[in-house]
Order: sequence, then C-alpha cells, then structure tokens
Amino acid sequence: MFALIRELFPLCRSITGDGVRQTLRILERFIPLNVHEVPTGTQVFDWSVPKEWNIRDAYVKNSQGERIIDFRNSNLHVVGYSTPINRRMPLAEFRSHLFSSPEHPDWVPYRTSFYQDNWGFCVSHNQFLSLKDDVYEVCIDSSLEPGFLTYGEYHLPGKSSEEVLISTHVCHPSLCNDNLSGVAVSVFLASHLCRWPHRRFSYRFLFIPSTIGSITWLAHNEGIVRRIRHGLVLACLGDPGCLTYKRSRRSTAPIDRAAVYVLQQSGAPYEVLDFSPLGYDERQFCSPGFDLPVGCLMRTPNGRYPEYHTSADNLNFLRPEALLDSLEKALNILQLLEENDVFVNLNPMCEPQLGRRGLYQGTRGQSNPPEHEAALLWVLNGSTGSESLLDIAERSRLDFRVIRQAADALQSHGLLGTRTDTRASR
Amino acid sequence: MFALIRELFPLCRSITGDGVRQTLRILERFIPLNVHEVPTGTQVFDWSVPKEWNIRDAYVKNSQGERIIDFRNSNLHVVGYSTPINRRMPLAEFRSHLFSSPEHPDWVPYRTSFYQDNWGFCVSHNQFLSLKDDVYEVCIDSSLEPGFLTYGEYHLPGKSSEEVLISTHVCHPSLCNDNLSGVAVSVFLASHLCRWPHRRFSYRFLFIPSTIGSITWLAHNEGIVRRIRHGLVLACLGDPGCLTYKRSRRSTAPIDRAAVYVLQQSGAPYEVLDFSPLGYDERQFCSPGFDLPVGCLMRTPNGRYPEYHTSADNLNFLRPEALLDSLEKALNILQLLEENDVFVNLNPMCEPQLGRRGLYQGTRGQSNPPEHEAALLWVLNGSTGSESLLDIAERSRLDFRVIRQAADALQSHGLLGTRTDTRASR
Amino acid sequence: MFALIRELFPLCRSITGDGVRQTLRILERFIPLNVHEVPTGTQVFDWSVPKEWNIRDAYVKNSQGERIIDFRNSNLHVVGYSTPINRRMPLAEFRSHLFSSPEHPDWVPYRTSFYQDNWGFCVSHNQFLSLKDDVYEVCIDSSLEPGFLTYGEYHLPGKSSEEVLISTHVCHPSLCNDNLSGVAVSVFLASHLCRWPHRRFSYRFLFIPSTIGSITWLAHNEGIVRRIRHGLVLACLGDPGCLTYKRSRRSTAPIDRAAVYVLQQSGAPYEVLDFSPLGYDERQFCSPGFDLPVGCLMRTPNGRYPEYHTSADNLNFLRPEALLDSLEKALNILQLLEENDVFVNLNPMCEPQLGRRGLYQGTRGQSNPPEHEAALLWVLNGSTGSESLLDIAERSRLDFRVIRQAADALQSHGLLGTRTDTRASR
Repeated sequence: MFALIRELFPLCRSITGDGVRQTLRILERFIPLNVHEVPTGTQVFDWSVPKEWNIRDAYVKNSQGERIIDFRNSNLHVVGYSTPINRRMPLAEFRSHLFSSPEHPDWVPYRTSFYQDNWGFCVSHNQFLSLKDDVYEVCIDSSLEPGFLTYGEYHLPGKSSEEVLISTHVCHPSLCNDNLSGVAVSVFLASHLCRWPHRRFSYRFLFIPSTIGSITWLAHNEGIVRRIRHGLVLACLGDPGCLTYKRSRRSTAPIDRAAVYVLQQSGAPYEVLDFSPLGYDERQFCSPGFDLPVGCLMRTPNGRYPEYHTSADNLNFLRPEALLDSLEKALNILQLLEENDVFVNLNPMCEPQLGRRGLYQGTRGQSNPPEHEAALLWVLNGSTGSESLLDIAERSRLDFRVIRQAADALQSHGLLGTRTDTRASR
Repeated sequence: MFALIRELFPLCRSITGDGVRQTLRILERFIPLNVHEVPTGTQVFDWSVPKEWNIRDAYVKNSQGERIIDFRNSNLHVVGYSTPINRRMPLAEFRSHLFSSPEHPDWVPYRTSFYQDNWGFCVSHNQFLSLKDDVYEVCIDSSLEPGFLTYGEYHLPGKSSEEVLISTHVCHPSLCNDNLSGVAVSVFLASHLCRWPHRRFSYRFLFIPSTIGSITWLAHNEGIVRRIRHGLVLACLGDPGCLTYKRSRRSTAPIDRAAVYVLQQSGAPYEVLDFSPLGYDERQFCSPGFDLPVGCLMRTPNGRYPEYHTSADNLNFLRPEALLDSLEKALNILQLLEENDVFVNLNPMCEPQLGRRGLYQGTRGQSNPPEHEAALLWVLNGSTGSESLLDIAERSRLDFRVIRQAADALQSHGLLGTRTDTRASR
Repeated sequence: MFALIRELFPLCRSITGDGVRQTLRILERFIPLNVHEVPTGTQVFDWSVPKEWNIRDAYVKNSQGERIIDFRNSNLHVVGYSTPINRRMPLAEFRSHLFSSPEHPDWVPYRTSFYQDNWGFCVSHNQFLSLKDDVYEVCIDSSLEPGFLTYGEYHLPGKSSEEVLISTHVCHPSLCNDNLSGVAVSVFLASHLCRWPHRRFSYRFLFIPSTIGSITWLAHNEGIVRRIRHGLVLACLGDPGCLTYKRSRRSTAPIDRAAVYVLQQSGAPYEVLDFSPLGYDERQFCSPGFDLPVGCLMRTPNGRYPEYHTSADNLNFLRPEALLDSLEKALNILQLLEENDVFVNLNPMCEPQLGRRGLYQGTRGQSNPPEHEAALLWVLNGSTGSESLLDIAERSRLDFRVIRQAADALQSHGLLGTRTDTRASR
C-alpha cells in the first residue's frame, strides 16, 4: 500500500482532469476498473458537472526572473481549479491571491476554488512574510474547458445482488493521508475480497471526486442504490492516530453495529462518532432522500490533525502499520457482515440434548463450561428468527467467531435453520 | 419588578377576598386583566368554591392590655382563613392555637386552614417560649361568608388559536419569593409578549389562587383547555438559587425540551426535576384527566429553602438580578417555542449546491467550516418533516439561533418548505 | 431450615434413584407433596428419561486391603451415575478415572457423568498426589437400570388459576448451598404461603432433578405452563454472600421488577445479573419456545464461590441468618406481586378534595407533606389503568407499602377503581 501511495503522490489530481485519469490507470494494475467519463454540463440533481481542469505549469517569478513559487516543486502551490493567468503585477495586487497558514508557518496549505472562478497560489507563511515589494510575473498555465468528470468503479459480484458500497475520493493532489491512504486501503480491500470464495454480498468500489463525484454516481445509479445494504466511506487511514468510526445517519444500521463491535473487540483504543452532515461523501449517501446505511472509517478524522490539508500530509506522515491495521479492520467488518446470519432454533422447547450429539464432552460438574459450550447455549437461546449472531455476540460478550462456530456446529446437527429472507437485510 | 413586589407585599391575600382584588387592581396598571368572580358554592369537579374570607384586624393582648401579637405588624401572624374569635383565655387553652417553628426561632411561620374551620396565630419560636402564664384577650376580626372566588385572566391573541398557558398563584399574603416573584415575572412577561409583532401562539395568563383557582378555571374552560399546546407555572423566581425546571407529566413535551435546552445553553448552573404530583398548580394541569404539557419554572423549589413559608421570605430575600434572569429565561423558552418550526428539505437527494446561491463563500479547504455553514448542512440533513429545529439544534450541538438563521436562509432560497400543520403541535 | 438441611445432607441424591425418594419423604413432613414417578425411556422433547441409578457401596482398596477411598465417608467420592465395577488394576489404569482439584488440594470435587456411561472416583488433590504405585481393588456397587425419574410437586391454590412457579433442584448429593439451601427455603416459603389468607395467585412448588426434571415437567404440563405468570428458581441461598437476582429472559417481567425493587429497598448490598442461558432450570423455563417470566434468586451465583461443587460446600459453609434473609426476601417479592394492583383514578380531572374526606389533616403550609399524603397524590396521578403500584413506587421513590396503603385508603373512599382484568398479567 505504501509503494502504491508513493507512486500516486506526485500526480496533480483534482475533481476532474488528467490527474484522476492517470491515478485510475495505476489502480487498474491491481483491480479491473470500469472508468466512466461524464460530460461537462450533465445535470446531476441540483448540480451540473463542471468544466474539466488541467494544468501544465505555474510559477511566480520575481523581477530577477527567479521562480520563487514553482508548481514543479509542489502542486499544492496552486489553488485547485485556478483559471489561467499570465501577467506582471505588484505585490499589493498579487497578495490577495496568496494563501498561507500562520499557525504552521513552514507548511503550504491546500486550497481550492472549484465552483467560483478564481486563481491563487499557496505558500508557507514564512515565505509569505519574506516577499518583497517587487513586480512579479504570475503564470498559471491551466485550462478550464468543457470536458469530462472521470471516475472509476469496480463491481465484484457475490451470491446475492444485494450490495456493499465502498467509496473513496480521488480528487486530492499531493496529500497522503487525505486521501491516498483511503485509495490504497480500498484497492487492497478489493484485492482481498476477490479471493473470498463464497461472498454473500456483491461489492461495489467507487473511486470518485469528492461531492460532485458521489452526486453524479447517485444521480445515475438509482436502481443500484436500492440494492445497497451496507457501505463504508474510506478516508484518512494511514496516520498514527487510533481508528475512528463515524456512524451512518441511521446510527444503528448493521454496518454501524458491525464496525463498532470490531473496534471494541480489537482491544486497541478507538473512537466512535455520531453522524454529522459534515465530512466526506457520506454527506451525500446519507442525505435524507437516500439515507443509505453508509458509515465512514477513518483514523484521525478530517480537520482534527494539524497536517490536514497541508504540505505536511506527505509520505513522512504515513505509518505503514496504520495502513495495514486499517485494512485488517475493514476486512473484519465486512467479514462479520458476511457471517452475520439470523438463525431459527428448530428445537425451541427446552434445550436439545447436546451430549448425545457429541457437542458436550467428558465428566461434568466444573464451575464454568468452556466458551464453546456456552456459545452453543447462547445461540440456541437467542435464535428465534429475529436476533442475528451479532446480537447474540453482543449480549453474551463472547467473541463473534466463537458464536459463529457454535452456530455452524448446531446447524450441522440439524438444530438450527436459516431464514434466508432475513439474512441480508439485517 | 422589584417595585411592583414592594407595592404588593403588604396586602393580606388569601384564596378569596379583598386582598386578591386589590392585588389584581394593581396588576391592571400593567396589563388589561379580565377579573372573574365565581360565587361561593359553585361546584368545580370534586370541589366547591369556599366561603369568602376577609380580615380587618387581629391581635392578642396580655392582661396589661398590650398587643403582644399584632396583625398590623405582619399578616403572617394570623392563620389563613381563621374564623372570627374574641375571647379571654388562659395560656393553656391558647397554646393549642399557636404555631411556631423551632428550627428558625426568629421567624414567623405561614400557616393556613382553608378547608377546615379553625383559628390560630403564628409567632416566632422565641416569642412562643417567652409567653407567660396569663389570661390573654384573643381577637380575630375576620369574616367567612358566602361571597366570591376572584381571579384574573389576560388573553393575548396570536396568529393561531393554539395557546400557551402561563399560570401564577396570587393567594399568599406577605411572602415575596412565594409568590410575588412569580406574579411580577408573569406580568412583565406579558408586557414583553404584547410587543412581539408576529406571535404564532396565543398566550393566556392566569393569576389565580392555588389549587381551588386552577380547579375552578379548568372546570369552566374545557374548550380552551383543548387548545393549550404549552404551559408554564411560574413560582419562586426571585431567590438567589439557580434556575430549576420541573418537567410536565409528559416528561418530554416540547415545553420540557425547550426549557431544558434554554437552561443548558445558558452556561449557568441549573437543575431539572422530574414531574411529581406535589408542588403548585401543575398538580391540577397535569392531573391524569388533563395531562397538559405544563411544566414549572422556579429558582429554588418550594420547601427547599429555609425561608420558605416564613416571615424571612421578605423583600430582603429577593435578588433583583434573579428576577431579571428568570424573566429572560422564560422569554427565551417562549421564543424558542415560537421559532421551533418543522421544515421539509425540498432538495433531499444529495446536498443542493450552496455555493451557487452565495451561501458558501471564498476558497475552500480549511479544517472546519464556519458555524453558519455547518448549520446549513445540519438543517438540510435533518429536515424531513418530522424533526424540529430544536431536534436539529440538540443533535448538532449548535446554538438554536444559528440553526434558525440557517433555516431562514435556506427557506429564502427555496430550499426548505414548511409543514404548517405540524408546526404548532410539536 | 438448618435442621432440615442437616437431616438431608447425608443422602446420596442424583437425578434419579432412592436418594431423591428419601429426600422427598422428609419434605412431606412439612408440605403435602405429590410425588411423580416417570418411567425410564419416556420421551420428553429432545430427551428421554434415563435409567435409574442407585448405589449401595463403593471403595478403593490398596494391596493391603485398606479402604483408601470410601463412599461411606462421603458420597462425593463417587462420580455420579458411575456404572458398576469390581476389578483389580494398577495405578496407571486407575488414574484416568480419578478426579481432583489442584486449586483446592484439600477438597474433594463433585463430578457426574449422567448421559455418558463411565465410572470414576473423586479425591482431594493431596490424596491424588500421595497414591503409590500399587494394584488397587476398585469397587462400585451401583446399578443403572430401567426405573423411574422421581420428582415432587406441591400445588397451593389461590383465588385465581394464574400461577407462580417456584422450582428447586434436588439432585445434588452431600452439598449444602447447592442446593439443600434452595430446598429448605422453598419448603419454608411454601409453609408461609399456606397461611396467607387471601392469595391472589396459585403457587406451584417443584422439587426436581436439574435439567431432565424441568424438561420432563414442562413436557408433561403444557396446559399449566400457559397459566404461569411469575416464577423463581431458588438455588444457593445459604452462603455468606449478598443476594443476587438473575433476570428472566424477558428481562423486565414483573417478577424481574419486583425482585430488583425488593433488593434495592432492602438497603443491603445486592447484585442483579442479566439473563444468560447458563445456570439452573431457568435455562429450560426460559428456552425460547417457553420464554416464561422465571428468574433466579441466589446469594453467590453458581461457580462464583470456591466451595462450589466441592466437599467444602458443607454445613460449615452455611449461615443460618443467610437462609433466613433469603426466605424473607423471597416472601417480600411474592407479597409485592400479590399486592401489585393496577388501579384507575375515578376522579381524574384535577385532584379530588382529600381534606373533606379526612385524608389530609391539620393546618397546612409546612415545607413537605408527610409521606402518606404524598403517596395519595402519587397514586391518584399515576392510576390511569396502565401503571401498576410498583410503577408508581419506583417513580415516586416511596416505599411500596406506603403506596399500597395509600391505594387502599383511596379505594375505601371510592376514589380508585380496579381493573381486575389487568391485575394479574402485570
């Protein structure tokens, strides 16, 4: 994952343009993406697809002709979606187009102006303060023209047409945690899921520009939307902080309960946030007209770490072990949803005789039965067709794996039946 | 308010009689009261209106002819509703009609015997102990005869016929916090509400004797009762303690949630009590046959401060700044209820494009959006026609004013619709 | 109770056999039991009644002919349901049939093998370690043959055919807390209930072998099962620990609320456990096909005290005062259920005039009304036909007795009506 991020880092992504296309091309080495191109001007709900933005070069030269600000050093130096300009101007005029961050005087901030025509440069505050009264040559060699919005989609079919949605934004330039970490975890998650032999659910991975990308996808896929049972937005998954799960708008959807359960059981510190309509594309998936069961898995949430949206969110900020941990937990959450069946106890009047079936062994009388025997009793007692195995795991405080194994053992002895109709919807 | 209380303080109020009439006449200088006179014997539910009680003078003279207890010094010296008496008697006989409070030996307690014919005097415990074996002349020049129960009512119409009830008891003699403070806050609250230009609700202010007054009003106004949407009993609002809100029997009615929200947001200490069928006239408004959404706003609750129902509940016990704070919070609660609309997001599929409408400004990328932008997203996400702005304010932890302003901005851009039918009932 | 336990202690009980018969015969001196004999092989749900086990003698002799392990010293020395054996064998062979407990090297553990043919001896770990390499004569003079499962039942009729079930297991040999304590408390509880003159409920006491006993009873009494409104399993009631109530599967059934209320009000430490499908016969009563409102009253729960299922659970471990306290609390719980009526306020519009009826007395104005007056108001306010007196006691934080007395007073003045149809089912 780290190597993939390193390769993607230099590209100048934005909500449209060649940076996204190059990014998706690299991802196609790992998973077979379906790349969509949606023309500028396409109406998507209240929005329309914007013009396509591309940039070749940008700089500011002082009167000695030195490039004192240079896009070639960092694509963060240019405000995203800057309109083209090539003019000399005094510092006084130039200054109103300069952005810096006094709280972190060494870092270059990341700024955009997607839906309001403007241009600008971002610099460290130290550089900002050192700028002399001079006449500067300001050049942004960009284009903002009718074109396309590009996004990638990967659909991995399962036994059921019910879907799990995994969505990641791919519109940030040279920023690592936000969100090349999400891109890398999503790609590797897809690679793992490919190899699961008996997927109950179908999985759909989106690599989309933030906001306009999810709006475009939702506007064009209302039929698929009805099949989404669970979903995760992946973002900020490589920083040193603990894992954070932000609940869906529904707050206790199965994805919410599965994610919280996995984080609880991990033994590591974690945080759970209530839904808020601020953040990433869960804003759109959880808009009231859709209200999809889509949560967001992060480490430190956006805006809560100082490196957020600055040049300090670079390769040094990432922890390979954090990426791996994020991937593992995302896999655990999905696996739990795959295995979270609802069973019906076929022998509900008193306990069945487990000893006769070899499910109890040895002499009896000890203080506490072993965990796997307790799990058998919990599953039998809880399986009335309305409680899921996760419900039972939560109440029994036994591990989900132990509960699942008990259910398998009981099922193989004909003591549990499935209710396939209730399975996936829980 | 303090000046009004000072003027009302000397009057000898009771549940009937001229003290109440004089009190209401003074209040009419501030608000145009409708004064009702209900004849003795009128049946009101399980009760009947009692005889009218008036008192001109009362005293106890020792054998030297000195007035050692004198109604002219304090009307608390006479047990409320004492029947007339004029007789000499030895201390032994007299003593069983004397009430004092050993815990506060300098204070004269307040006692009544409204529904059981009796007479008595209240004295400080020090005086009680100093009484010598003597023959005393005991005189109470009172009358208890068929007459009227008097109460005042002020109706302030609004756009809707749905009503907010504000009820205050006016039956206590020279006691300040209980309840001249409530009377003064209620009168000034009415004066302020007069000046609100676009009142949604109609407001009804009651100045009534405790218990029998609310029972009488409820018995005679069952048609109005059906229109009551919110209500507050006002009592004990001038002492130095923090504000206390006692919930209605319904516990989470809009008045309960609005009051608790205003106290929470105030930043000052406060207390919230669950409903109990002990206290003031909320006992009747919240009797199970009515179960009205009427809470009680107080500072220190009745019976929880030592000065309660004693001569120490006098002008010195009141804090003008406490009266003002109580008035402000009552106004805030009512204003919140006035503004607590339920909206419907008219663009519920994804977010609408706020930037295009000038609701977002400038370049973007900063860590946290300003509060008013966050409020726009919260209102859009929450407005499904079932959540009120107060619901949204509580969940977002944003100030109700900020939420309300966001709703106004969204409504003026055609992004929110109202559901007038659901407004007032929440 | 202690004397009864002392008499029962030496008997070698098991899930079938003469030990149970002798035990029930002793109990019949206290209460008239109906003794049932269910033949071996009878099908009861998923189970069938096992063969009857009886034992006359058992020992292990060393090569000198000394009885080094002797059933006559303690019936715990033989694994319950051991098949007959009479053979010489070397230590190596013998050892796999020996059970001891290294954590408590002086105590003999209690072990069984009810549903798997086997034999064995239990010894202290110290004795286990001291066994020399020798040839031992191993003898168990037992029989495992078609016979009967024996249990006792006592039905105490009340005004209603709705039943309270009290169930106790009688299958443990010389163990005191588990469960001669439960047997003794149950017997004395029955003796007390006999003397209650106006029992609303009928009471049914079961003295049954664990698991197979309750399964057998449930299989044969489905008609009675439908009439069970409340139930308690009694076990481990004589140890020095605090009382523990384990909730029924329904979690907030009236029995659960009554038990928790009684423990709370006792002022003594106590513990409340959520339901789990591990424990005593509540496992069967609360299996999902029955889901009866049956909780379990214990002191220290099974498996949570070191003496559990060892020779240290003997007469010295019991505390007579703990037995008495357990009995009292069980009686309190049942009495509360008997008295927990649901009333309807017949005068729901405002308060009725209590003073006129002599329910209020004396002059008024004091800070706090006496408890019994507060209780009158709470009962009137809460009695809408859906809240029980226990609901009202919980909300008012007044004692249930005070609430009940207030209800009686109000009922005798015609202010409360009963809803006999809702009484018992709550």
